[in-house]
Formats: sequence, structure tokens, C-alpha cells
Amino acid sequence: MASADGGPATIETIARRAGVSIASVSRVLNGLGGRPDTVRKVQAAATELGYVPNAMARSLRGGRSGQIAFAMEDIGNPVYVAMVRRIQAVAKEAGYRLLLHSTGADREEELRALRSLADRHTEGLIISPIRITRDHLDELSRAVAPVVVIGSLPEGVRLDNVRVDSRVGAAMAVAHLVGIGRRRIGFLNGPLDTVPGQARYKGYLDGLATAGLGGEELVESGQFQTDSGAEAAKRLLARVPDLDGLFCANDLIAVGALRALREAGRRVPDDVAVVGMDDTELARVTWPTLTSVGLGSARRGELAAELLVDRLGEGRDREPRWVSVTPELVARESTRS
Amino acid sequence: MASADGGPATIETIARRAGVSIASVSRVLNGLGGRPDTVRKVQAAATELGYVPNAMARSLRGGRSGQIAFAMEDIGNPVYVAMVRRIQAVAKEAGYRLLLHSTGADREEELRALRSLADRHTEGLIISPIRITRDHLDELSRAVAPVVVIGSLPEGVRLDNVRVDSRVGAAMAVAHLVGIGRRRIGFLNGPLDTVPGQARYKGYLDGLATAGLGGEELVESGQFQTDSGAEAAKRLLARVPDLDGLFCANDLIAVGALRALREAGRRVPDDVAVVGMDDTELARVTWPTLTSVGLGSARRGELAAELLVDRLGEGRDREPRWVSVTPELVARESTRS
Repeated sequence: MASADGGPATIETIARRAGVSIASVSRVLNGLGGRPDTVRKVQAAATELGYVPNAMARSLRGGRSGQIAFAMEDIGNPVYVAMVRRIQAVAKEAGYRLLLHSTGADREEELRALRSLADRHTEGLIISPIRITRDHLDELSRAVAPVVVIGSLPEGVRLDNVRVDSRVGAAMAVAHLVGIGRRRIGFLNGPLDTVPGQARYKGYLDGLATAGLGGEELVESGQFQTDSGAEAAKRLLARVPDLDGLFCANDLIAVGALRALREAGRRVPDDVAVVGMDDTELARVTWPTLTSVGLGSARRGELAAELLVDRLGEGRDREPRWVSVTPELVARESTRS
Repeated sequence: MASADGGPATIETIARRAGVSIASVSRVLNGLGGRPDTVRKVQAAATELGYVPNAMARSLRGGRSGQIAFAMEDIGNPVYVAMVRRIQAVAKEAGYRLLLHSTGADREEELRALRSLADRHTEGLIISPIRITRDHLDELSRAVAPVVVIGSLPEGVRLDNVRVDSRVGAAMAVAHLVGIGRRRIGFLNGPLDTVPGQARYKGYLDGLATAGLGGEELVESGQFQTDSGAEAAKRLLARVPDLDGLFCANDLIAVGALRALREAGRRVPDDVAVVGMDDTELARVTWPTLTSVGLGSARRGELAAELLVDRLGEGRDREPRWVSVTPELVARESTRS
């Protein structure tokens, strides 16, 4: 629908003002470029006529921006790298660009990522918070665009959700250490007030109980980070000199623990066998290579992206889906008998 | 300025319609939350009155969105993690949120990140392309918001730029290997058609020439990735059985090379001394730990963010600045005599 000069700017009025073809204007305004002088003329005409850029106009009409976002805790943790790669692949296949937020597990950053859906710049969000507070649930309940949560949600939350039972995975790690004859099995955890910290702690206790090794908890907690893992390992070694097995709540902690064990002159796996969690690329890089319980991070990313893409398309009105992946222990040199 | 019902929606008209205070409306519309029923009433009234959300309104006025973006090649390369951490710190300090694009070094993705500045959702962009094509320069020249480039730009490009001379860094790596008595020094490179691939190759040749070792180039090229590095190392070992030193064009390649050397039964550093580049966190994680030439990735991220923040504020009209950081070799176990 062409409009006369004086009405709202359209590609027709801009083409007339710039003295170029309508096709050229369309290409420039849709970000497809053009000859430099054409681009300059179109941009000048669009500015003079007060044209609202296209992506903005689309989002004001509640239409498609063609973008989705993923908010993760820590860009430095390879578990999120694995997720991002698969999310990006699914998004690309479905014609979406992916934007990333690295929140540093900061509650305000996570809440802001949820609230920013209101500006319609992204059509949907995948979020993986390690703490799920009352505020998170409030924001999730009033999100104005589809959200998929990677992580364990409380019962009754009506959102698409991808989860993994890391409690079961932690018990598998302990069972593996018991299976190779270890009896003094320590645990280096992340913060206990996080969802994964809680689940992995309970799984460690489950594993000890199953093996009849309950009673003494050889646990140190810190952050889900390498340096913190090294510090925690030092504290545990000082306290438990006859430690012979060690389960670490993620691979970063395990990398720190391997360093601390080496510095303390303990051989891995001969003196202390070590198991990590998340089965990230790091597990193949360390020496010895690291046995680790995979939590299907790539698969979780893929499932979350598929749920979101479906929700943005044909599945707009379907019931929320909760899907789970299964932990899997990958044995490497750090537990070789 | 209050407006009568029927005019454009304002927080006053919304407050009246929702039956709540103006302060409550302001809080909800600015994403600061409120009591669930208040939020619901405000959102319903805003929708009925056709209120344009605030962030959108701000960006339509050409005002502040409070967001900047960083487009990097590969979220899986810790060199970008180091950059992101510092960019995020500077951005936060200055009151900006940071959005991330992982482009996979895909030219179209990078160009799209530049073009998307037109939608005013982000106020500025830091971009670190490993190839700078004619199209990149065209898009950079017509970017509608400030852009800072991390990487080597051709002379004459009028943009804020942060760079490091990795050619000098590569020559330092070779000089270090020569200094510990190595004479058969190989080089595992990334793609030669990239800016870093070119610079590091030239630096390798410089290093050999300086040591009087020119003549034979013991070079294999692949991607800037771990698996590709392992493959390249295998090819080089098969071709050069008496290899005693190895410079790798980044730490990921070096990690792959360490794996290949171990599988081939070569001791590091006794048989083959290895130097990586970028001095990422991986260099402290491998065994033996990896000597690596640091290219100031954290510092480059910090400088780029400072330039962008300045350009968005007081420095809006200043001349473009080009700043450089200096390479620095960090010696670790992989080259210990």
C-alpha cells in the first residue's frame, strides 16, 4: 500500500525521495546491503522521512524478530559451550539467530534476561539458572514470550523444561569408585544452596549408603570453578590423608583437584582415583584423562532448542513438556585400575 | 506530561485504567516487578491502551537501550572467555548489559551482527573477526552505531581498534625454543587465509631466519581447534621424525598436539618442546603445563570495552584510536630444560 508524502514513511516514499528503485530500498532496509552510494541515499531518505526500521516495526507489531536467546551461568564452563553449539545448530536450522547472555549466576542478571523479553527483540528464551528463587518463578510466570528452562523446576510450573537427574549421576560416580575398590571417597561440591549442589550432594550420600560406606561425610564445598576446586582438594587432603577416591561436582572442580593432587605428590589413579561430572571437552584434555559422568549437556541444549522452536511455531498452544536425559559415566584414565 | 484518555498511552493513563499508583506503573513498565496482581493489572491496562514498552520507545527515540554486544568467533575458545569476562566487567561498571554473538567465523553471521546495529537494540558493538573481507569493511564503514574492532584492520579504516602483533609473538615462541637448544622446530598453524594465520606464519619464518634456521618450513595447517591440531601434529611427526620443537598457533592446537605426542610416545619437553599461543586457562590445565605466548586477551577485551564506553559517552566525536598490547611469553613445563 503506497502512501502519499506526508503520511508515514514507506519503502515507496523513501524510494521516491532517494531516487532509487523500490527493490533497492527494500534490500537496504532489510539489511541486505547494496552499492555504497545507494545505501547512503536510502539511509538519508529514511532518516529525513522518520522511517521506523524494519526489525523494530516488526517487533512493534508483535511479529518476528528472528532471534532467540540463551542465558547461561558462566561462559567459561565448557558445559555451556556444548549446549550453545547444539542450540545454535537447531536455531539456525529453524531460521533463528541466537543471542547469548552470560549471567555469572547473578540473580538480577537472570531476572533481567527474563524481563527483557518484553521488548520483543527476541522471540523466546532458553535459561539455565543454578538457583531458582521465588523471584525467578514470578518472572517466569509472567514472561511475555516463550521460555524453556534447562534445570530442575519445582512441580507445578507450567513451562517447557529439560532436566537431568544429577543426583542419580552422582550416585553412579560413587558406585564406580567403589567398584574399583575405593573406600575413602571424598566429594568436592559447588555451593550447597544451588539446585545442582543439592542434587549432587544427595547423590553422593546415596552412593555411599548403597555401598554401606555411610557414616562419615568427606565433603568440601566451594564454587563450581577450577581454582576453588584446587583449594577444596587441599583442605580435604589435609583432613583425610588416606583418601583414595574423589568425586568432583563438575569437571572444572576436577581439573583443580588433579592439579592439587599432583602438587601434593599423589598419583592419579593409583593413590587417588578421580571422577568429574558433565563430561566436558576438558575431560579429554587433562592428564590423566578424566573419568566423568556425562549429563547430556549437548543433548539438553538440543532438546531445549527444539522445544522453543516448536513453541514458537506449530506448538504455540500445546501443553508444557518436561523431558529428561539420562546420566552416563564415561570411564577414562583417572579411574583405570 | 499527563495526556487525556484517547491520546498516546502514558504511565498516567495506564495508572488510571489499572487503578494503581503511578509509581507502581513505572516500576512494572521498567521491569522492576511488583505484586503479582498489580503487575497483571498494569500489563492488562498497558495492552488495552496500546502502550509501547519503554525500552522500545527509548530505542525509537534513538535513545539508550543500555546494551552493547560482543561478536566473537568461537565461544569454545578460552581466549574469548577471557575477553568476555573483562568486557562484561567494564560494561557493567558503566551501566551496560552485554549481549554475545558466537559467529563460528561465519562471514554472514558477522555481517549480520554489524547490520543488526540498525535496529537500535544495542548501542554499540565489539567485533573480533578472523577474516576481514571487503564486505566487512563496507559494513563497518556504514555501521549506524559505534563499533570497536579487536584485530588487525587495514590502514586507513577510521574505527576504534585494539590489536596485538602476533607476528612478533610467534617469533618470540621460536626464539624461546631455539634458546633451549631446539633446532628442528615445526609449526602447526590455523587457516592461512585468516589474519592470525598469516601473521603467525610470518612470525614463525622471522624466528627461524633470526636463528639462522631458515630454509626448510616444517609447517602443517588446519583449523584453530584441538582435534585439528592433533591431526596436524600426526602429519608433521610422520614427515619429520627428528622434530624437537613445536610452535602451535593457539592453545587449542597445542592441546591437540600434546595428545598426539603422548600417543606417539614422544616425551614433552624431553623429546619435543611445545609452545602454544594465547596463554589461555588451558595452558595451566594440561600436563605438562603449556608454555604459551600471551596476546593480552583479557587486556584487549578491557581496552575495547573502554573505547566503546568512551565513544558512547564523552568521546562521541573524538578521532578513532588504535591501541596495541604487547605479546608476552609465559614459560611452563612444556619447555623446561
